Amino acid sequence: MLSQKNKFSNPKNTKECVFKISLHRIKKIIFMKSKTAKETLAVTTEIVLPNDTNSLGNLMGGRLLHWMDITAAISSHRHCRRVVVTASVNNVAFSHPIKLADIVTLEAKVSRAYTTAMEVFIDVWVENHVTGIKTKCNEAIYTFVAVDQMGNPISVPELIPESEQEKERFAGALRRRQLSLILGGKMKPDEATELKALFGK
Amino acid sequence: MLSQKNKFSNPKNTKECVFKISLHRIKKIIFMKSKTAKETLAVTTEIVLPNDTNSLGNLMGGRLLHWMDITAAISSHRHCRRVVVTASVNNVAFSHPIKLADIVTLEAKVSRAYTTAMEVFIDVWVENHVTGIKTKCNEAIYTFVAVDQMGNPISVPELIPESEQEKERFAGALRRRQLSLILGGKMKPDEATELKALFGK
Amino acid sequence: MLSQKNKFSNPKNTKECVFKISLHRIKKIIFMKSKTAKETLAVTTEIVLPNDTNSLGNLMGGRLLHWMDITAAISSHRHCRRVVVTASVNNVAFSHPIKLADIVTLEAKVSRAYTTAMEVFIDVWVENHVTGIKTKCNEAIYTFVAVDQMGNPISVPELIPESEQEKERFAGALRRRQLSLILGGKMKPDEATELKALFGK
Amino acid sequence: MLSQKNKFSNPKNTKECVFKISLHRIKKIIFMKSKTAKETLAVTTEIVLPNDTNSLGNLMGGRLLHWMDITAAISSHRHCRRVVVTASVNNVAFSHPIKLADIVTLEAKVSRAYTTAMEVFIDVWVENHVTGIKTKCNEAIYTFVAVDQMGNPISVPELIPESEQEKERFAGALRRRQLSLILGGKMKPDEATELKALFGK
Amino acid sequence: MLSQKNKFSNPKNTKECVFKISLHRIKKIIFMKSKTAKETLAVTTEIVLPNDTNSLGNLMGGRLLHWMDITAAISSHRHCRRVVVTASVNNVAFSHPIKLADIVTLEAKVSRAYTTAMEVFIDVWVENHVTGIKTKCNEAIYTFVAVDQMGNPISVPELIPESEQEKERFAGALRRRQLSLILGGKMKPDEATELKALFGK
Amino acid sequence: MLSQKNKFSNPKNTKECVFKISLHRIKKIIFMKSKTAKETLAVTTEIVLPNDTNSLGNLMGGRLLHWMDITAAISSHRHCRRVVVTASVNNVAFSHPIKLADIVTLEAKVSRAYTTAMEVFIDVWVENHVTGIKTKCNEAIYTFVAVDQMGNPISVPELIPESEQEKERFAGALRRRQLSLILGGKMKPDEATELKALFGK
Repeated sequence: MLSQKNKFSNPKNTKECVFKISLHRIKKIIFMKSKTAKETLAVTTEIVLPNDTNSLGNLMGGRLLHWMDITAAISSHRHCRRVVVTASVNNVAFSHPIKLADIVTLEAKVSRAYTTAMEVFIDVWVENHVTGIKTKCNEAIYTFVAVDQMGNPISVPELIPESEQEKERFAGALRRRQLSLILGGKMKPDEATELKALFGK
Repeated sequence: MLSQKNKFSNPKNTKECVFKISLHRIKKIIFMKSKTAKETLAVTTEIVLPNDTNSLGNLMGGRLLHWMDITAAISSHRHCRRVVVTASVNNVAFSHPIKLADIVTLEAKVSRAYTTAMEVFIDVWVENHVTGIKTKCNEAIYTFVAVDQMGNPISVPELIPESEQEKERFAGALRRRQLSLILGGKMKPDEATELKALFGK
Repeated sequence: MLSQKNKFSNPKNTKECVFKISLHRIKKIIFMKSKTAKETLAVTTEIVLPNDTNSLGNLMGGRLLHWMDITAAISSHRHCRRVVVTASVNNVAFSHPIKLADIVTLEAKVSRAYTTAMEVFIDVWVENHVTGIKTKCNEAIYTFVAVDQMGNPISVPELIPESEQEKERFAGALRRRQLSLILGGKMKPDEATELKALFGK
Repeated sequence: MLSQKNKFSNPKNTKECVFKISLHRIKKIIFMKSKTAKETLAVTTEIVLPNDTNSLGNLMGGRLLHWMDITAAISSHRHCRRVVVTASVNNVAFSHPIKLADIVTLEAKVSRAYTTAMEVFIDVWVENHVTGIKTKCNEAIYTFVAVDQMGNPISVPELIPESEQEKERFAGALRRRQLSLILGGKMKPDEATELKALFGK
Repeated sequence: MLSQKNKFSNPKNTKECVFKISLHRIKKIIFMKSKTAKETLAVTTEIVLPNDTNSLGNLMGGRLLHWMDITAAISSHRHCRRVVVTASVNNVAFSHPIKLADIVTLEAKVSRAYTTAMEVFIDVWVENHVTGIKTKCNEAIYTFVAVDQMGNPISVPELIPESEQEKERFAGALRRRQLSLILGGKMKPDEATELKALFGK
Repeated sequence: MLSQKNKFSNPKNTKECVFKISLHRIKKIIFMKSKTAKETLAVTTEIVLPNDTNSLGNLMGGRLLHWMDITAAISSHRHCRRVVVTASVNNVAFSHPIKLADIVTLEAKVSRAYTTAMEVFIDVWVENHVTGIKTKCNEAIYTFVAVDQMGNPISVPELIPESEQEKERFAGALRRRQLSLILGGKMKPDEATELKALFGK
C-alpha cells in the first residue's frame, strides 16, 4: 500500500491532480468570467414613506443615496460574486423633487470594471400615479471594490458593454477615473491624457 | 372716508409704512446677514449598530451617506435659516472601514455660498475605543439649495471663511463648481478658467 | 346675456360639451384599459439585515410578509392606477429558510382582476452568492382592492394573461376565490361549482 | 478495572443512570408537557405611526402581517419553549381599515398542535379613542414549526382547548390542515375526509 | 323675533337645552368617570432584536425607556381617553441585563391621578426560554399629562386602587410627587410634609 | 531547572517584570487618568421626523429618552473608555413641547464619577428656525456603570469639574445619589447626611 505522502506524486493519481487543477479553474471561471452589463442589472422599487421626506413633503437626498448604495452594491456583487464595499460616490445630481407616496424605481448596472474596482451607474425613475409614465429624475455613479474576508481588495472580471448607452458609459468611465484620481491627489494633471484632451489643447 | 387704496399714500400712515419697511429690513437682516463658517458648524455623533453593517461587520456606505446628508442639511440650514434641499453630492471617498460599535463623529460646515446654493464640507471621524484618539476616515462635499414653500430657489447670505482650512476650501469651491457645471453639461470646458489653468498650459 | 344655467344647453357650447365627454372618455381609457399581466410586473430586491433575522440567523416570516405586501401593492397599483388596499392574504408557505445577508428578489404580477379586486402572485427568489443561480423559495397570493379617496371600492380594468404560467394562474384564481368566499362565510359550499368538481363527484 | 463500555451496566453506577434518566425525564416534562390554550396567550399593543400608513392614512396590510407574525411566534414559543419558524399563513382578511394613531391590540393563542407544527389564531382589536370600546377588526391563522439548532423540526406537546371558542377552533384546525395539504400538493382531495364531508354530498 | 340671546331661555327650547345638558353630562360621564387601576392596564410584548443591543449583546437602556414610554402612554390614555404627553420620568433602575432574543413583557397601570396628571407604574418581565418562568427585571415610574388639541392640560378622572399593591403605590405617589416638586424647585422642602416625616426628626 | 513559580523572582527576568509593570501602568494611565468634565462632552443633533411624533405633531417622550441615553452613553464611554451600561434614569422633566422638523441638539457631560458609576447630565436644546436662537427645553440625569466583558462593574477614573456649572452639578450629585439609594432601599434615611440637612431640623 502506498503511503499518504506519496499519493499525489504517484502517476496513478494523475486523475485526482487533474481534478484539483480543474477545481481551481472552475473557481476562476466562476469568479473571473467576463460579464455583460445586462447580467449585472439590479432593480428595486420603493414607496416614499413619511419618514423619508422633509418638511416640504419631498424625499430627502440622504434616503435616496442610501437606496442607491444598496442597489448599486447588489449590481456590483452580481458582477464579481464577492463581498463589495463602497469606494466612492462620484457626482450625484438631485434635479427633480420626488414626493411622498411616489413609486421610485432604481436600476443599477456596472458600467466598467478595473482590476479590483467597478463603476456602477444608477438610474432613478418616478412613475406618474395616473398615467404610469416613468420619468427619469436622477442619475448617479458609485464605485465599488471587491474584497476578501480580511477586507483586502481582490480581482474582478471584465465587463462587456453591449447597448449604445452601455458603450458610451464604458468609454466615459476612464475620463471620470482620471478626474477622481487627480482630485484624490493620486495622479498628476499632466498624466491625465483623457482630461487634457478635454480642457487643454 | 379714505379709500383703502389711498391708505398707504396718506401722510398719516407714514409710521405704518416705516414699520413695514423696517420689518422688511429686519427680515433681510436675519435671512441675508453674512455668516462665518464657524457659525454653520453642525456636529452629530452616532454609534454603528448591527443593521448599519455589511457581512464583514463594516459600516455600509449608504448609511454613512445618509448621516452625512442630514448633518450637512442642518449646517446649510444654519447658514440661511430656510428649508434646504440636497442639490448634489460631489466626490465622496470611503478610504477607511468603520466597524460595528464604533463611535462616529460628523462635522459639517458651509465652505462657500453662491446665489442660492451652498457647498458643505463634511469631515467624518472615528474614535479609538481605548485611547479615544479620533482618526479622520472620510471627507465629503455636498451642495444644498435654499427653497421657499413652493420649492423655488431663494437667495442665501454670503459666507465668510476665517481659519486657514476654511479659506482653502472656500477657494477650491470655485474649481469644483466649474467642474460640476461641465460634467452636468451646463458650462463649456473653454469657459472654465479655473480648470483650464489646472489641466491646460 | 345668457344665464349660467343655459350655457350648456346653448348650441354654441357644443364644443365644450364634446370636450367634457372626451375628458370622461380619456379618463375611462386610462383607468379602465385592460392590461396584460406583464404590464403589472413589480420587482424589488432586498438584502437580509441583522434586524430581519431570528436567533437562527434566518429571515423572519413577518418581514418577508411585509416586503411581499409592498411589492404586490405596487403591482396592483400598476394595474389600476388607483390607491389599493390589502384585502386578504391567501396561503403563503415558507418552505426554504433565507439566511442573513442573502439577496432576495420579489416579483409580483396581477393574476386575475375582478370587479374591484385584483389577485396578485408574488414569487420570491434567493440567489447563490457564488454561482448567482436564483432559487425560488416562496410563492404567495395576496388580494388587493382599488379604493377612492373615501376608501370605497371602485372598478378596475380586466387582466389579459399571455404566458403559459399566467394563463394557468388566471384559471386557478376562480377556484381560490370560491374557497375564500366559503371560508369567509360569504358563499355556500353548494354554489362553489369549481370546488365541488375537485372534492365531490 | 472496568471498561468504559461496562460502566453504565455496573450496579455501582445505578445512581448515575437514574440521574441520567431523571434528567431526560425532566427535560421531557418541561418540553413535552401538554399546555392549555390559555397558557399560550401572547398580547401586544401597538400605536399606528405615520410610517405604518398608506396615502389614505390607513395602516398598511404588510405592517399588520409583520406584527401578527411576531405575536404569533411568541405564542407558539410559549407552547413549546423552542425556536419556532413561520411555516405558513392561512387566509388573513383585512375587513376594517385601521387609522393613524389608533391603538391596536393583538392577541395570539395556539389553536391546535400537531407533531412538530402549531396552528395559531391571532385576533386584532382596535379601540375607540373616546369610549375605549374595542372592536375586532382582523382574524388571522398562522402555522409555526418548532426547530432545533440545525433548523430541523422537533416534536411539540399537545394542546388542550378549554373554552367554547378554543374547542371550536381546535376542531376546525383539521379541516384547514387538509385544505392546506391539498393546496400544497401533499394530499389527494380523495383522502381529505373532513373536506369531502363539506363539499361532497 | 326672538334675539339669539333669548333663544335658550325660551320655554319652547327646553328640549334642546335638556339635550345640550345631557350631551355635556354624557361627555363628562365618559371623560371624568373614575376608573379602577385594573381598567388602565396596558400590556405589550417585545422580542429583543440585534439593533436593540449594545456590544455585550444586552438590551440598551434607551430602547427599553422608549418601549416603557409607549406602554405607559397607552395606559394613561385608557384612564382619561385624551391625548397624553410624557411629563416626567421618575427614577428608573436597570438592575438585570436583558439579552438578545429575550421576550420582554411590559405591564403599565396608572397608580394615581391628580388634577391633570397621572402617575404610571411600568413593570418589566423577562421570561426564561426553557421554563417560561417570568422574572421581574425593571420597575419604572412615568408621569403623563392629558392635553387638549392646543396642548393645554385638561382634567382627568380619579383613580381607584383595588389590590394591595395598587393601594401601596397609590399611597407612595404623594411622597414621590412632593420630591419631584422640590427637585424641580416648585415646592419648598418645608412644605413637603410627607418627606419631612421620612427624613426629619 | 527553575520552576515556573520562581521565574519572575529570578534576577534574569527583571527586564520582563519591569515591562510587565510598565504595561500595567500604561493601562492604568489610559483607563484611570482623571478627566475634566469638558473632555467627556458628547454632542448630537437630530431632526424630528414624522415617526417620532404623537398625534399633536410633538416629539414623543420615549424617542427623546432614547436619544438622551445614546448621547449620555457616549459621554460616559469617553470618560472611562470601557463598555458602559445604563444603571438608572433620575428625574427627567419634559417641560416644552418639541415640534415636527425641529432641530434638537443634545449635549451630555459626566457630572461626577464614583467607584464604578458615572452620573451624566444631558441638556437638550431646540433652535428657532428663523433666528437660530437655541432654547433649552430639557434637562436629564442618567447614571451609567462601566463593565468588563462579563458584565461585571469595573473602576472608573475621577472627574474634575472646572466651570461654575460643572462644580455645582458635581456638588449636587452626592445629594441625588443618597436620594437614589434611599428610594432603592439601599440606604437608611438616617444615614443620608446631605438630605437630612435639606429636609430636617
